[in-house]
Amino acid sequence: MATDWKIIAAGKKAQQQASIPKEWLLSNLPPQSVLDISGFPETCGLLSDEELQITRSDTDTLLAKLASGEWSSVKVTTAFYKRAIVAQQITNCLTEIFVERALARAAELDEHLKKTGKVVGPLHGLPISLKDQINVKGIDSCMGYVSWIDKPAESNAVLTDILESAGAVPFVKTNIPQTLMWPETYNHVFGRTNNPYNRSLTSGGSSGGEGALVSLRGSPVGVGSDIGGSVRIPSAFCGTYGLRPCYGRVPYAGCVNSMEGQDSVPSVLGPISNDIAGIKHFMKAVIDAKPWLQDPLAVRKRWSEEEYNLVDHGNGKNLCFGILWDDGLETVKKALLDAGHKVIDWKPLKHPEIYETLRGVWGAGAEEDYRTVTALSGEPIISTMVPEDAIVKDSGEWFVVDTGVSAFQLWQTQKHKRDLRQEYLRHWEDTVSVTGTGRPVDAIISPVAPYAAPPHGLNKNANYTLIWNGLDYAALVIPVSKVDQALDVQRPRNQFYNDTDKALYESYNPETFKNAPISVQVVGRTLEEEAVIAMSEIVDNALKTSKAKS
Amino acid sequence: MATDWKIIAAGKKAQQQASIPKEWLLSNLPPQSVLDISGFPETCGLLSDEELQITRSDTDTLLAKLASGEWSSVKVTTAFYKRAIVAQQITNCLTEIFVERALARAAELDEHLKKTGKVVGPLHGLPISLKDQINVKGIDSCMGYVSWIDKPAESNAVLTDILESAGAVPFVKTNIPQTLMWPETYNHVFGRTNNPYNRSLTSGGSSGGEGALVSLRGSPVGVGSDIGGSVRIPSAFCGTYGLRPCYGRVPYAGCVNSMEGQDSVPSVLGPISNDIAGIKHFMKAVIDAKPWLQDPLAVRKRWSEEEYNLVDHGNGKNLCFGILWDDGLETVKKALLDAGHKVIDWKPLKHPEIYETLRGVWGAGAEEDYRTVTALSGEPIISTMVPEDAIVKDSGEWFVVDTGVSAFQLWQTQKHKRDLRQEYLRHWEDTVSVTGTGRPVDAIISPVAPYAAPPHGLNKNANYTLIWNGLDYAALVIPVSKVDQALDVQRPRNQFYNDTDKALYESYNPETFKNAPISVQVVGRTLEEEAVIAMSEIVDNALKTSKAKS
Repeated sequence: MATDWKIIAAGKKAQQQASIPKEWLLSNLPPQSVLDISGFPETCGLLSDEELQITRSDTDTLLAKLASGEWSSVKVTTAFYKRAIVAQQITNCLTEIFVERALARAAELDEHLKKTGKVVGPLHGLPISLKDQINVKGIDSCMGYVSWIDKPAESNAVLTDILESAGAVPFVKTNIPQTLMWPETYNHVFGRTNNPYNRSLTSGGSSGGEGALVSLRGSPVGVGSDIGGSVRIPSAFCGTYGLRPCYGRVPYAGCVNSMEGQDSVPSVLGPISNDIAGIKHFMKAVIDAKPWLQDPLAVRKRWSEEEYNLVDHGNGKNLCFGILWDDGLETVKKALLDAGHKVIDWKPLKHPEIYETLRGVWGAGAEEDYRTVTALSGEPIISTMVPEDAIVKDSGEWFVVDTGVSAFQLWQTQKHKRDLRQEYLRHWEDTVSVTGTGRPVDAIISPVAPYAAPPHGLNKNANYTLIWNGLDYAALVIPVSKVDQALDVQRPRNQFYNDTDKALYESYNPETFKNAPISVQVVGRTLEEEAVIAMSEIVDNALKTSKAKS
Repeated sequence: MATDWKIIAAGKKAQQQASIPKEWLLSNLPPQSVLDISGFPETCGLLSDEELQITRSDTDTLLAKLASGEWSSVKVTTAFYKRAIVAQQITNCLTEIFVERALARAAELDEHLKKTGKVVGPLHGLPISLKDQINVKGIDSCMGYVSWIDKPAESNAVLTDILESAGAVPFVKTNIPQTLMWPETYNHVFGRTNNPYNRSLTSGGSSGGEGALVSLRGSPVGVGSDIGGSVRIPSAFCGTYGLRPCYGRVPYAGCVNSMEGQDSVPSVLGPISNDIAGIKHFMKAVIDAKPWLQDPLAVRKRWSEEEYNLVDHGNGKNLCFGILWDDGLETVKKALLDAGHKVIDWKPLKHPEIYETLRGVWGAGAEEDYRTVTALSGEPIISTMVPEDAIVKDSGEWFVVDTGVSAFQLWQTQKHKRDLRQEYLRHWEDTVSVTGTGRPVDAIISPVAPYAAPPHGLNKNANYTLIWNGLDYAALVIPVSKVDQALDVQRPRNQFYNDTDKALYESYNPETFKNAPISVQVVGRTLEEEAVIAMSEIVDNALKTSKAKS
């Protein structure tokens, strides 16, 4: 059986390679020793000048030119497809490749626009990449499990249907870790996804394929999923924007997943893009499609322009941000103060207790879930993300899996989590006494991880992201800068999260993290996606203004 | 220990009796052989003519006169309190009684109105009764458990706070069954609640105290909870209106409960009243208070006048109702057709499978939950609701409790339930092809139970209500008529839900059910409370018009 699964996995990988048009295979790939390959798509020679211009465009420009017909969907989809295939060859970010099908759909959209003069929907002609879990009819969603190879989806996921109705062109699917429960991206079928800014570093996970792909502008908008940081960690590590919406705001029905039936801290789908406009267009289009008529778990809550206009947040004037303090947020603080906003320290409340409840909920049935799937093929469960030739070794599993947990015990953990959420809500409301705005803190600015993208296998701490999953707060990642070898010297530090963290710290030198993006999260409240998008625009603009000045 | 719990329970009951003002204790109570005591509050002599007029008023009138100051809150609260105490003496519907405290709050409200000329909020001065679970600071919420006696609540439930801020006066708490997981109302501490229309019949449960109290106009608006029908069954059996809102629409935080931490088919709080206006005023007031700022599980979804105006339902003209067929819905069908609406048959989809998933979820940890609480005092878990002197005997538990269920097994049940919800949503959407309105069915009209209120101990089938909990559809109960001995003769029937159902059928004669109310549910979609209220008004008006004609 051990041989069998390897053969099946290799077959799938060969199929994938064969699905790439030969003329898009490059012979001038940089050697593995070249770590920063972020500029390669621009210089590789595969894309024409116009294709480079298209793929460099922001989302507003793309949608406007697609809607006017200035750029056909076939042209735009081809440009992004070529760039995605370049990205694949240098970071291994894709799973499913289906060029003909995507271009056929693009041609239909072009035809429709030509005939009727009207767009099909708000995302007319825009190619959109999908994390491997998101079903596209007739295409595999094997999720890195050998067991699920050659089981093409019988129908589209609800989100796929909605995106297609909105005029989008799903065109590639992207890589994930086995089980989805790792903050890195590696599996037995498709292998490992690398960070475009430094290939010795992880792209993050579990939506690591999306992070690398979007970062290289191989896709204008990608869709990831996030149960403990899986949209935000790759967004941060790869220097893109990414939103973790709240439970049920984006329809999840019809996707494959791990740990299905776990209702207490569910995974959510969310967009990744190189600008906030990409995120806003995606969210508005999806919500305007009334997903609750297709997915029973999608919340019946219309897109609210009122909430986007920040009516509950003083119309966006003189906001007060709470900063969850960590190294490197000085830049953000200064930019916000310069823009006329207020910044206070955010006092974390019982974060370690909240982490434990999440691990308790997930761990209650995780191992049985993993074993059930992998037993079908005999493939081993991956116990470390550390590559075989890595210098820093590691002990394996990044969250503790319990066994033999009863349903009643699980309920006790869930009850405790609910009580902690209640306390946290009061804690947030109570900041009304210190903001001076008459309102509680409008949003929290938080690190996304305790470090920039670490070397493969060493991303062992998702606490800065999973805290907001546990509380179900909407959170949007914004890139701030990159690790600068001159500035980012090692600072003295006495406390460590765990042994890996300590080993990582001790092995640190700015060279290791060279070029790695540095990001923050703007964290708002439950089902407040519109306001979080608007406040993120405010933070992003403040940062851009600040950078332009310095 | 067996003696201990009985002594503690008896002590609590004696305290309750002592909390009734002596002058409200009646010496002219009807003998137990008088079954229909629904008219007794009007004739008992305790209430003045004005108090009778107040307690007979509809909710709109009450709120208008309270807001104008024509009736003070002290006057209105006193009137309802007296009537509630009468109800208590004939049906045993109350748990906690706190006259002084309620009247003190009413006096404050009167003072505020006098001083400022303004109401405190939209429910200014209105007494509201609360199911025993809903915490009121300083008062017990023992929920019929001996173990929880003399543990006064440390703070108000979020809903209690919101109601008080809206100007309401919480004034009594109401009776429930032990564990809350029975569709009848009996526990070791407070005993059994009887049906006001026929005391040999059950009031239903688990909000049976509310059902009996509101039905006797001892409270203008009461709050129950509903996990499988617990608001709707007592509303139907006692002839009142009652709404089961969807998960999270009404804040539950700060209440006591059974099976806490069970997140998959949660209980919800909902209003019971003698008119739909009472339900609407309650819902609008609670939602307008932004409960999501106090309860992390409350959905951030404002009250929508647009949805109340039925914009998604053709503005309420020419609706199409699907009737889930059962005896006795002919009246409703005729009334709706006469009012210009359309009626088609609703085809149930996999209802038995859905029931099983709910029983699987609840049963997974129920027994451990019950044992944990009852072990504290040694009180036995109640295994039947049949009184000792009953003619029809019964075997006990009404839903099967599993033991030794693992978290992973629970996830499988939850996954199955999610898939069934997905199928059901498609099933509903697909009715667009048969309604002729261009829309899917606007609402379903369904029975609330397979029978009118049965004799104590024999209510063993909650399928008509729990189906909508499993699907999380909003459902409002409307009274239609009462069992008429001349009309409601026994009809031939071959199929039975179970042995109890068969025994009940065979023991039937119109005399048994004499006077029992007959009701229907108007069932809408998830988080569509506004539309369900509006459509219920349409159904209710059609029924009233129809009755006026005949």
